[in-house]
Amino acid sequence: MVEMKQFTALSTGVDTIWIVLTAAMIILMEGGFALLEAGFVRRKNSVSIIMKVFVDIAFGTLCFYAIGFALMYGKDWSSFIGTSGFGMKGDLSHLAFPFSKETFFMFQAAFVIAVISIVSGAVAERMQFRAYVLYAVVMTTVIYPISGHWVWGGGWLGKMGMLDFAGSAVIHAMGGFSALAAAQILGPRLDKYREGENNVITPSNIPLASVGAFLLWFGWFGFNAGSTLSASDVRIGHIAMVTMLAASAGGAITLLYTMFRYGRADAPSVINGSLAGLVGITAGCAFVSADAAILIGAVCGLGMMAATYMMDVWKIDDPVGAFPVHGVSGVIGTLAVGLFARGKGVLYGGGWQLFGVQTLGLLVICVWGYVCTWIALKAIARIVSLRVTEEEERIGLDISAHGAMAVNTEDTLTLGSEYKKRV
Amino acid sequence: MVEMKQFTALSTGVDTIWIVLTAAMIILMEGGFALLEAGFVRRKNSVSIIMKVFVDIAFGTLCFYAIGFALMYGKDWSSFIGTSGFGMKGDLSHLAFPFSKETFFMFQAAFVIAVISIVSGAVAERMQFRAYVLYAVVMTTVIYPISGHWVWGGGWLGKMGMLDFAGSAVIHAMGGFSALAAAQILGPRLDKYREGENNVITPSNIPLASVGAFLLWFGWFGFNAGSTLSASDVRIGHIAMVTMLAASAGGAITLLYTMFRYGRADAPSVINGSLAGLVGITAGCAFVSADAAILIGAVCGLGMMAATYMMDVWKIDDPVGAFPVHGVSGVIGTLAVGLFARGKGVLYGGGWQLFGVQTLGLLVICVWGYVCTWIALKAIARIVSLRVTEEEERIGLDISAHGAMAVNTEDTLTLGSEYKKRV
Amino acid sequence: MVEMKQFTALSTGVDTIWIVLTAAMIILMEGGFALLEAGFVRRKNSVSIIMKVFVDIAFGTLCFYAIGFALMYGKDWSSFIGTSGFGMKGDLSHLAFPFSKETFFMFQAAFVIAVISIVSGAVAERMQFRAYVLYAVVMTTVIYPISGHWVWGGGWLGKMGMLDFAGSAVIHAMGGFSALAAAQILGPRLDKYREGENNVITPSNIPLASVGAFLLWFGWFGFNAGSTLSASDVRIGHIAMVTMLAASAGGAITLLYTMFRYGRADAPSVINGSLAGLVGITAGCAFVSADAAILIGAVCGLGMMAATYMMDVWKIDDPVGAFPVHGVSGVIGTLAVGLFARGKGVLYGGGWQLFGVQTLGLLVICVWGYVCTWIALKAIARIVSLRVTEEEERIGLDISAHGAMAVNTEDTLTLGSEYKKRV
Repeated sequence: MVEMKQFTALSTGVDTIWIVLTAAMIILMEGGFALLEAGFVRRKNSVSIIMKVFVDIAFGTLCFYAIGFALMYGKDWSSFIGTSGFGMKGDLSHLAFPFSKETFFMFQAAFVIAVISIVSGAVAERMQFRAYVLYAVVMTTVIYPISGHWVWGGGWLGKMGMLDFAGSAVIHAMGGFSALAAAQILGPRLDKYREGENNVITPSNIPLASVGAFLLWFGWFGFNAGSTLSASDVRIGHIAMVTMLAASAGGAITLLYTMFRYGRADAPSVINGSLAGLVGITAGCAFVSADAAILIGAVCGLGMMAATYMMDVWKIDDPVGAFPVHGVSGVIGTLAVGLFARGKGVLYGGGWQLFGVQTLGLLVICVWGYVCTWIALKAIARIVSLRVTEEEERIGLDISAHGAMAVNTEDTLTLGSEYKKRV
Repeated sequence: MVEMKQFTALSTGVDTIWIVLTAAMIILMEGGFALLEAGFVRRKNSVSIIMKVFVDIAFGTLCFYAIGFALMYGKDWSSFIGTSGFGMKGDLSHLAFPFSKETFFMFQAAFVIAVISIVSGAVAERMQFRAYVLYAVVMTTVIYPISGHWVWGGGWLGKMGMLDFAGSAVIHAMGGFSALAAAQILGPRLDKYREGENNVITPSNIPLASVGAFLLWFGWFGFNAGSTLSASDVRIGHIAMVTMLAASAGGAITLLYTMFRYGRADAPSVINGSLAGLVGITAGCAFVSADAAILIGAVCGLGMMAATYMMDVWKIDDPVGAFPVHGVSGVIGTLAVGLFARGKGVLYGGGWQLFGVQTLGLLVICVWGYVCTWIALKAIARIVSLRVTEEEERIGLDISAHGAMAVNTEDTLTLGSEYKKRV
Repeated sequence: MVEMKQFTALSTGVDTIWIVLTAAMIILMEGGFALLEAGFVRRKNSVSIIMKVFVDIAFGTLCFYAIGFALMYGKDWSSFIGTSGFGMKGDLSHLAFPFSKETFFMFQAAFVIAVISIVSGAVAERMQFRAYVLYAVVMTTVIYPISGHWVWGGGWLGKMGMLDFAGSAVIHAMGGFSALAAAQILGPRLDKYREGENNVITPSNIPLASVGAFLLWFGWFGFNAGSTLSASDVRIGHIAMVTMLAASAGGAITLLYTMFRYGRADAPSVINGSLAGLVGITAGCAFVSADAAILIGAVCGLGMMAATYMMDVWKIDDPVGAFPVHGVSGVIGTLAVGLFARGKGVLYGGGWQLFGVQTLGLLVICVWGYVCTWIALKAIARIVSLRVTEEEERIGLDISAHGAMAVNTEDTLTLGSEYKKRV
C-alpha cells in the first residue's frame, strides 16, 4: 500500500523538476534577448548589448536574492510591500508551496532578469555602461519587486482580482513602459532622426537575431506553462497550445501584412510579430480559448506594427522595438483577459468587473514602471552620465566601452605592448 | 492512504509535462532547421530560408490547428482519413489519452512543422516566397495529415502493423521525398550544373550551421523519447541511448570516411552524417538494440554520402541535402525496423511479415509525398511563379524578396527617404 | 486504492524523464563548448574547433559505450576499476537504480563528452586533427573512466568519503589539468609569445561565443540538478538556486574587476567568469549554502582571472582559457566543499577530515589527468604528428585540415573541376 508520505514526496519532486526545468528554459531566454538584440543593432554595438544582458543576469539575480525577493514575496505589509526573506533568510512560511522556497526563487529570478532585459534593448547603442549597471540594480532590487508584489505577492491588485497568469502586465508591460521612459530620456541615436527624416538603421545580423528569436520562443513555453507552478495543473497542455497559436498568429499576420503592403515579408517585423503574439498571450494563456488566443496574437502583431510606426512619428528611438513588442502587446494581452477570460470576461457574460480591474491594474503598473524608471535614470544621471559621448557613439560602444570588436575577421591581431592595459 | 483520483491526477500531470517539454524541444528544432539551412546556403539567401522556416511554424501550426489535425487524428473514416476535430472542436473522444487533447495537439503540431521544414531546405535559394507559403499551407493542411492518418491516426497502414515509432517514414521519408519532388520541379540553382560540371556552392557560415545542428540534436531527444507519449514508458532510457548512439555512429562514419577518402574531415558531411543517423533511428528507437542502432546510424551516414553523390550525378540540386538526410535515411531506418525489431524483425526470427509491411508502408508514403508535392506545386504554378527570376536569383532572395541583408557590416545605413516603402 | 506497483512505475518514470531531460541539456552543452570556442579562436580555425567537438560527441559516446562505461561503472575490482558492462552487456546488477541502466548510461555519456570537450579548447588552432581523434579515444575509453571510477564508480576515493556532487574534480579539474598538459606539450601558437611579448589574439566572434556561453549556462542546470539522479531529491531547488547564484557571482565579480581595473567590462572575461562560477559550484551545489555559493562563485571568477594572467607569465598558451576556467575553478570548488559543506566542512564544525579527503582526491585526479594526458600525447606523437605544420597553422586549420572556410561571404564559389577531390 502506498503511503501518503511517499506520494507527497513524489508529487513534490514532480512539481520541483517542472519548475526547475521551466526556470532553466526562461533563463535561456536571456540568450534569446542578447542575440536578438545583438543581431538587431549595428555590429559596432553588438558586444555592448550582450554585456548588458550579462549585467541583467549576474546583477539581477544577486540583487533579487539579496533584497528584491523579500520585497516581492516576503510577508505582506499593508498590501503594498513584502518585508521578510532578505537573502532568502527569515520568515517565508506564508509561501505555502509544496516545493521548497529555493525552487520558487529560481523561477522568480528567471522572471526578474527577463524584465530588465526588456529595457536593455531600448537603450541599446547609446547608454553608458556604468549607468546601465546602476539602473539594472535599482530595477531588480526595488522597482519590479514592488509592483510585482501588488499582483503576485499578496498585494492590493491581486486581492482585487487582477488576472495576469504569466505576466503580460507584471513582466512585459512593466518592462515595456520602463523601456519607453528610458528611450525617451536617452533620446534617439545620432542620425536616427537627422534632418527630420526617419532613417532606418538596418539590423547587423538577421540570422543571429533569429537564433535569439528561436531561443525566446522555446523559453516561452517554460514562461507560460511553468507559471502553473504545479505539474498536475490540468491547464498545462492548453497553455502550451495557445502559446503556440498566439505566436503563430502574430508571426503570420505580420508576414502577410508586410508581404501585401510592402511587397516583401519583412524579417524583423515577422520576428517581432511572433514575439508580440507571445507577449500578448502571456496574461491569458490559462484563461482564454484557442480561438481567442489566435485573435490576441494577431491583434498584438498588428499592434506592434502600428506602435513601431508611431514611435517613429513621435521620434522615440527604440532600436529593437522593446516598447512595441513588450509594452503594447503587454497592454493588449492584459486587457484581452478582461474580454476573453472564460467565465469572467466581458464576452463570456462576466460583465465589466474583471475588465475594469485589468484596466486599473495595467494602468498602475505602466505608470509605475514609467515613472520609477524616469526617476531612477534622472537620479543616476546625477552620478554618472547616462549617455556615451558623441564620439564614443560614432565609434561604437564595443570599442569605446568594452575594447572589443564583435567580429574580427583579421586572422591575427597582436597587440603586444598594449597588453598590460587589457588583462 | 492515497486515493486513485490523486494518483491519476499526478500521473496525468507527469505525462503532460513530459509531452509539453519534449514538444518544446521539437519546436526548438525549427531553430535548428533554420540556422542549419541558413549556414549551408549562400549568404545572400540566408534570411530567405529563415523566413521560410517562420512560414513553416506560423502557417503550419495554424493550418494544422484548423484542419490538418482533424484529418490526421479525427474520427476515422474507412481507415483513410480523420473527420472530426476541426479547430480542435467536435468529437475527439476516441483519443483516449490520459492527458488532454491540447497536450496531444502540441506534440503533433511540433511534428507537422518539422515535415514542412525538411522541404524548405531543398527549395532554398530559388523558390518564390509566395509559392512556398501556398505549398506550406497545402502540406500541413492536407498532404501530411492524410498519410499520417494511415500510420498513426488509426488508418490502414497502422492496422496492418507498420511500425514507425517516431517517424522515420511518417515524418522524414515523407518530408524527404516531398523535398525531392520540389527540387526536381524547381530545377537546379543557376550555375550549379553549368556546363555540365558539378559546381560546389560552399556553405556561407559553418558555425551558424553548427548552431542549427546542435539544436536539432538536442531536440531529437524530445522527438524520439517524447513519442512514447507516456513518462512511465520503460523504454525511454533505451530510446534516448540508441538515439545518441545512432547519431554518433552517423557522425563518426562520415568523419572517418571523408578523412580517409578525401584527406580531410568534411564539416558539412559530418553534420549531415549525424543527422542521418538521427533520422535513421527514429523509426526503430523503441524496437532495436543498441548495437543495431550503431549499425543503422553508420549505414545511414554512408547512405547519405552515397545519395549526395548520386544527386549530383542525376543533376538534382538539393542545397542542404534534405533528400539524402531525411529521404534516404528515413527509408533505411524504416526498413531496418523490419530487420532488427526485437521479436518481430527478420534477424530476430520474426520472418518477413514485418519487413513486408514496412516496405509497403514506406513505398506508399514516399510515393504519396512525392506525387502530392508534384501535383501541389504544378497547381500552385498556375497561380504564382514557383521560381524567382534569374535576376532575383543572382541578386539573392534576401534583397529581392525580403529587402534585407543577412549581415550588414556597414556601421550605419540610413535609408531616409526610402523609409515610406519599408514600414 | 493505489498499488505499490503502479506507484513504483510512476516514480521510476519520473526519475527517468528527469535524467533523460537533464542529459539532453548536458549534451546541448557540446553546442555550448563548440560555439564558445569557435567564437574565441581566430576565424581561420573556427570550423576546426567545431569538428573537434563533433569528435568528442561521436567518438566519445561510442568509446564510452564500448569500453569506458564498463571501466567506470562495471563491477568493482579492488576499488580501482570496473570490470563488467562492456557494450552495456554483462552483469551490471550492482547498479541498483530504480531506472534502467540505459538511462544511467545516457547521463554518464553526456558527462564524458564534456570532459574531452574541455581539452579541445586548450589545443585549439594548432593540434593535428588525427592526433586529436586518437587522444579523444584514449581519454573517453580509459583515462577519464578510471579516475571517474575512483570517486563515483565505487572506487577508493568515494569510499574515503570524497564529496564531488556533479564533478568539479571528476569532470572539470580532470579536464582542466589534462588541458594544461596538452597545452604545454603542444606549445604556444605561432606569434603568441613572439619576441617575449604576450600578444593578445582577439576572439573572432564574441556574439557566437555568447551563444555558446548561454547554452552552457542552460545545460549546467541539467549538469548539477540532474546529478541527483532522482526527481524526488529534495535538494533540487537548492542546487538550481546556488548554481544560478555562483554563476552570477562569477560574472559580476569579473565584470566589476575588469571595469574598475581596465576601465572597461571585458566580454571574454565576463563570459569565462560566469563559467568559472559554474565550474566552482559543481562539486558543492548539494552541500553548501547560498551565501557560500556566492562566495565560491566570486573566488572562482577572480581565480580564473589570476590564472589567465599566470598562464601568460608562464607562457602556456590556452586559447580559450580551459585551464583557468575548468582546472582552477575545479580545484577551488572541490576544496570549498571541505570548507563549506554543511555539517561536515571546516567552517561548519566538521573538522579537517573532509577537507583532507577533498585535497587528497583532488591531487590524485589532477595528477592522473595531467600525467595520463602527457603519456597519451607522447605515445600518439610516435604515430602521427601532434601539431600541424607552420604553414598549415598560418593558413588556418579550417582550410588546411577541413578544406572549408567558416564564413564565406562570396556569393558564389564554384569549384568545378576541383569537385572530385571534395565529395
